[in-house]
Amino acid sequence: MTPYESTTPPDFQPTARTKIKRLHQRAVFDRETVYEILDAGLMCHVGYAIDGQPYVTPTAYWRVDDRVYWHGSSASKMLRAVEKGIDVCFTVAHLDGLVLARSGFHSSINYRSVMALGAAEKVSGEAEMLAALEVFSERLTPGRWAELRPVAKQELKATTILSLKLEEVACKVRGGPPGDDEEDYALDVWAGVVPIRTVVGAPEDDPLLNAGIAQPAYLKQFRIG
Amino acid sequence: MTPYESTTPPDFQPTARTKIKRLHQRAVFDRETVYEILDAGLMCHVGYAIDGQPYVTPTAYWRVDDRVYWHGSSASKMLRAVEKGIDVCFTVAHLDGLVLARSGFHSSINYRSVMALGAAEKVSGEAEMLAALEVFSERLTPGRWAELRPVAKQELKATTILSLKLEEVACKVRGGPPGDDEEDYALDVWAGVVPIRTVVGAPEDDPLLNAGIAQPAYLKQFRIG
Repeated sequence: MTPYESTTPPDFQPTARTKIKRLHQRAVFDRETVYEILDAGLMCHVGYAIDGQPYVTPTAYWRVDDRVYWHGSSASKMLRAVEKGIDVCFTVAHLDGLVLARSGFHSSINYRSVMALGAAEKVSGEAEMLAALEVFSERLTPGRWAELRPVAKQELKATTILSLKLEEVACKVRGGPPGDDEEDYALDVWAGVVPIRTVVGAPEDDPLLNAGIAQPAYLKQFRIG
Repeated sequence: MTPYESTTPPDFQPTARTKIKRLHQRAVFDRETVYEILDAGLMCHVGYAIDGQPYVTPTAYWRVDDRVYWHGSSASKMLRAVEKGIDVCFTVAHLDGLVLARSGFHSSINYRSVMALGAAEKVSGEAEMLAALEVFSERLTPGRWAELRPVAKQELKATTILSLKLEEVACKVRGGPPGDDEEDYALDVWAGVVPIRTVVGAPEDDPLLNAGIAQPAYLKQFRIG
């Protein structure tokens, strides 16, 4: 497996485990929407079970074609458990707003979420690992990878990269104004949406930055959410 | 169990399952920090396993004293599984920044996260449920609960509220500038932090809002992150 597969697979088909049973009007399974939601984020939540106890670990991730990747220290409890091939649930969710309906019952949140199930695979081979790390870096800060010193051999050894093929995927989106009970529209109570967004602030120089190093242009391109 | 226990329990003690093994300088277990991180958020990720398959569901939550609460439809697959008393992992994570070190290896993200393990309990009893929902509403939009029509009996029946006592808790925080290898500080590459924040936008009236209803003052108080 390389991080550069360039297939264009069909849209996702619900399985017994990913079929949205409730509010199925919120279920979206087309591949383009799934990729858009994934590419808008930086932090996922990976779920895995050890001895029956579920754990949910937030971690950085990135997508290449029909795979998502995440990484960390080879000593990480999560990565060591997951690289053995146990099933994971990879979830990304963006919070978009607080939905205030005319009743508490219909109040809600606006969000975009993707959940992918499957067995994660370890990315092995130095070239494959470096390629995956380069994609991650270039996605966030295009041009920076070439500025950085080469990755040391022991740094690669200390790093585990996992990937999950996007096959069993559920996608749920809620957007727009509240949906109230017909009779509640007569009530004189405010209803609407309070938007919530993730924004990028002005880059902060490391206090130990050498004199004369300007902020690179790629910092301005960084977007999230 | 009521949502109004007013104990002030001691700080959290690491267990074999929550002991932070790596980068333990990032591990914080004092109760005040844990509460601050939880109170800054609106969306958690609840992990649970069904037939060995882990699932991670993003959902809204709130905290009262030493418990966290989340809720949803009584028909929800997640809530039905969890209310049977299976173990969950409740995780909240706030993304605070992209940390660009002088090497890819030491680049990271700034975040604040809390993970709580245990068996969730169902909130039962109409009065207890209403009290929990009122706290949730008032926390987000103080004063709004009194403006809303009463919760209908069948709405309560259609709602499941779960809670988890904060006992087995891990808290991890990374903040501040990158930490580079000593020899890398001589490199002429930009290093620093790109801050990431969650912001609240201007409230948007429901297009179906009755004429003459102004935006209430509590909307201005809503903060997140």
